[in-house]
Amino acid sequence: MVEPEGPLNVGMVARVMKNMGLKELVLVKPKAPPLHPYCLVMATGAKEVLWEARVLDSLEEALKGSALVVGTTRRRRKKRELIPLREAAPRVLEVAKSQRVSVLFGREDSGLTNEELSLCHLLVTIPADPVHGSLNLSHAVAVFLYELRSQLKGVTAPKRKLAPWEELQGLFAHMEEALSRIGFMDPQNPKRGVEDLKEILLRAGLDSKEVRLLRGLFRRIIWATEKATKGGKG
Amino acid sequence: MVEPEGPLNVGMVARVMKNMGLKELVLVKPKAPPLHPYCLVMATGAKEVLWEARVLDSLEEALKGSALVVGTTRRRRKKRELIPLREAAPRVLEVAKSQRVSVLFGREDSGLTNEELSLCHLLVTIPADPVHGSLNLSHAVAVFLYELRSQLKGVTAPKRKLAPWEELQGLFAHMEEALSRIGFMDPQNPKRGVEDLKEILLRAGLDSKEVRLLRGLFRRIIWATEKATKGGKG
Repeated sequence: MVEPEGPLNVGMVARVMKNMGLKELVLVKPKAPPLHPYCLVMATGAKEVLWEARVLDSLEEALKGSALVVGTTRRRRKKRELIPLREAAPRVLEVAKSQRVSVLFGREDSGLTNEELSLCHLLVTIPADPVHGSLNLSHAVAVFLYELRSQLKGVTAPKRKLAPWEELQGLFAHMEEALSRIGFMDPQNPKRGVEDLKEILLRAGLDSKEVRLLRGLFRRIIWATEKATKGGKG
Repeated sequence: MVEPEGPLNVGMVARVMKNMGLKELVLVKPKAPPLHPYCLVMATGAKEVLWEARVLDSLEEALKGSALVVGTTRRRRKKRELIPLREAAPRVLEVAKSQRVSVLFGREDSGLTNEELSLCHLLVTIPADPVHGSLNLSHAVAVFLYELRSQLKGVTAPKRKLAPWEELQGLFAHMEEALSRIGFMDPQNPKRGVEDLKEILLRAGLDSKEVRLLRGLFRRIIWATEKATKGGKG
């Protein structure tokens, strides 16, 4: 962070760094020291990011040893390409696999200067409203780190195991029997409502346990109608 | 936002909504009013989001008319699928093209309750550090809206018009009545199977016609049991 003004922002940045699995925070000429009470209170569980933060007098000093320096900015500088974050992330992550990468965030009010941007290998921007696109500093860091993390391993979904096709077919047969018992099916057009119900269940992506649950329901409907028939006779 | 505590957070949320091109903020039982000075100071150029924010006493009231209700949470609830934000975004955007979508953010300390999450069609999570993954509330909103904005291009509205949230709640009440009539519900644990059935229907994304179809089914079940009772007497 280059000359951050607000200790609240610095604390929130520490927090989101820890949220996203990072810890190396460098503050260049901050207005408040990293252990300012407002920093600490906003960092909540990430206070050690602040304890270990380095405070430096010059940006150049901070960038030493970085294989890739990324400047974040909203302003297009003539001749320099401004890459949207999502596109830039793979490049940042590739380098970070084996070498040091520095990502610069500027002042709350004015961002990074042209001179500071000229020290960067890559200028990255967060797409936002063309008129009201000035993000809170800690929001910009949050979004940036979220994007990096999201592309780190590729998105992994919690994989539900769906019921095999034949179970659904068995379920549907059971359903048709139950529905005909309670007179739900139109004799003129027996498939009508049933097909719609099937579509709902197909779309829902059922697992085997849910299939069993629904079969329990249909069994219960059939049971209820049998009771009704017996009752009618009695 | 459901019961937000911090006016700073509410103000920062207003700001990032405007950054990302949104404006309809609803606060359910907030600790501080939206025009609290701390809200206003953090909103900077987005004060009109706060002026126009609606303050409501109940979440149910806020959800009326929503075709899709999205709950944000870190906690896996047993049986319910938790979808990473990046995967969930297309679904949210598709529906939002033509119908109202509500995205719920819970309390700073405890998030959304299980009961609140059970009102949602979709549970979404922001991937983060497994141990220190608790994001600042406004950071969670920032990341969520950034992701939506990033995937906005090329989204087309779905052909099907989803049933509004309150129709589903009516359907669920009807379902519970029908299921209790046929003894489907375990008296020891009446919510068990019913909650699973609700989840299936929430996931399926029903339209109003399908809601009516299912209500017809439940009406028929109730009718069948009434016939049974009369039959038993005869």
